[in-house]
Amino acid sequence: MPASEFSIIKEYFTLASDVGIPPIVGIGDDCAVLDIPDSKQLAVSTDTLVEGVHFLANSDPTLLGHKVLAVNLSDLAAMGATPAWVSLAITLPGIDKPWLSSFSRGFFALAEKHSLRLIGGDTTCGPLSITITIMGLLAKNQRLTRSTANVGDSVYVSGYIGNAGLGLLKAQLGVSDLNDEDLVSYLTPTPRVSLGEALLTVATSCIDVSDGLSADLNHILSLSGVGATIEHDALPLTPSVQEHILKLDDELWPYSTGDDYELCFTVPERLKIESMKEFSSYKITKIGVIEKKLGLRVKKSTGSTVVLDKGYQHFND
Amino acid sequence: MPASEFSIIKEYFTLASDVGIPPIVGIGDDCAVLDIPDSKQLAVSTDTLVEGVHFLANSDPTLLGHKVLAVNLSDLAAMGATPAWVSLAITLPGIDKPWLSSFSRGFFALAEKHSLRLIGGDTTCGPLSITITIMGLLAKNQRLTRSTANVGDSVYVSGYIGNAGLGLLKAQLGVSDLNDEDLVSYLTPTPRVSLGEALLTVATSCIDVSDGLSADLNHILSLSGVGATIEHDALPLTPSVQEHILKLDDELWPYSTGDDYELCFTVPERLKIESMKEFSSYKITKIGVIEKKLGLRVKKSTGSTVVLDKGYQHFND
Repeated sequence: MPASEFSIIKEYFTLASDVGIPPIVGIGDDCAVLDIPDSKQLAVSTDTLVEGVHFLANSDPTLLGHKVLAVNLSDLAAMGATPAWVSLAITLPGIDKPWLSSFSRGFFALAEKHSLRLIGGDTTCGPLSITITIMGLLAKNQRLTRSTANVGDSVYVSGYIGNAGLGLLKAQLGVSDLNDEDLVSYLTPTPRVSLGEALLTVATSCIDVSDGLSADLNHILSLSGVGATIEHDALPLTPSVQEHILKLDDELWPYSTGDDYELCFTVPERLKIESMKEFSSYKITKIGVIEKKLGLRVKKSTGSTVVLDKGYQHFND
Repeated sequence: MPASEFSIIKEYFTLASDVGIPPIVGIGDDCAVLDIPDSKQLAVSTDTLVEGVHFLANSDPTLLGHKVLAVNLSDLAAMGATPAWVSLAITLPGIDKPWLSSFSRGFFALAEKHSLRLIGGDTTCGPLSITITIMGLLAKNQRLTRSTANVGDSVYVSGYIGNAGLGLLKAQLGVSDLNDEDLVSYLTPTPRVSLGEALLTVATSCIDVSDGLSADLNHILSLSGVGATIEHDALPLTPSVQEHILKLDDELWPYSTGDDYELCFTVPERLKIESMKEFSSYKITKIGVIEKKLGLRVKKSTGSTVVLDKGYQHFND
């Protein structure tokens, strides 16, 4: 039975897409047509995940459907944008209906949570990879950027750092117990969308931690023309990550692991948002200070200071 | 030497991107931020091209850079939208600087022609594939859709049909002479952007011919709840395609070949746009009539009528 691109899209990707802001023209035409409210600007981000690179071969499709969307929602969160529309380009080795059904279940469960509407995409034949373009709305003149940290600002992170990295190690070792919190952090990250929105009026800069805290905070520092010192003892670590660090005898390990999808952001020192009512429902931790001296320094538990400048690299040659 | 995703994007994809409407935030942050004029709506389309499926292995990267963008511009053309912004997600087996340089040359040459601004994307490691999300602007309440053809409308196509299909056959046979017009049609299609814009006020429906005239016109017919009869003798064919049809003894061959990237559209019969001054600079041909009776019929040169319902299928299982 031949199944055209068209019928695949119809079967798996139109039924669940009635949440959020309806497009003027949706799936099934040459383009989607979107009406952006006059008071808003559009935030747009694109991310590709490739099997064997960004996720393990034979990953559970429901969890994968969640993760590819979470990764993209995390980019909107880092901009402070409210999710609105998404397009989904999937390249698949062939039609695997149970896989498609599970993938779309994971994808739409997260999309619905954020009132995110699927407005189009493409299904093609080839090695498994997924590219998502996500669109969100921002009030005009409001946004969180990477290039606007100021000397004296406090540096914060949300959630915990390093446990997704530990989850990846466990997944590679074959752990599949979905009660393992590290594995869950790796497989189904929670994009910090409402935190990003709440930060719009207080943060001076923001990035999501996808390539490792060191690499991502370094982007803020270099684009803002500043430096920072992090107090290692302030870094939010789960007991399992603390244990892993002890085993490795490498305190710096969580700075270079990826996949956290937490927000790293800067706030004027006087604000002390960790004690503000608006932020009482979020796990946020002050980990350091923005300084004039360029570079990212970590003050280790022993009191010595090291400079960190590298994280996850997408290519090596 | 390790080269991060970031430095690749910087090196090849920021320099040439100063045409068109500048984004509020461009490449290098978590999202691009775009300001949509209050009088406009946004048209969005996503297409993926995979090596070995949508283009031949070891394709010339400059021509490929043109083609992947042309394919996406063609979707905007079919909607009548004016190109504005584009994001580019490339998955590459490794860093090949001459390849990247040539690819970006082909991509930006066509982008500049349409004042199209690159606003972001992703570079990842894996089997070669390219996903583009293109965004265009439409005046509010103006658009060309597939679902709005009316009984009695004339059916038109732009350009010629089938010569890109013949070009693909020649490319597969190793022809590389860029003076060969069929090969050029296949490798560097011309998206009919200004024709699409001109059709906004006269056409009742429109689609771009990417999967073959039969498959694509059938989309208009089924979504509009109508049928059509095409006069085969009216179909615009180049001498080389006419010769190929004679050799095959198969008049219907050009209806199922893909990659034309021409527009197929319907216009109220009374308008006769082929003799209107606004359309004098376009090659457009009336090929048939929209009818109440469902299905796509072709009246062959012999006078007999056949029903066409299939085109290029992305998957077979």
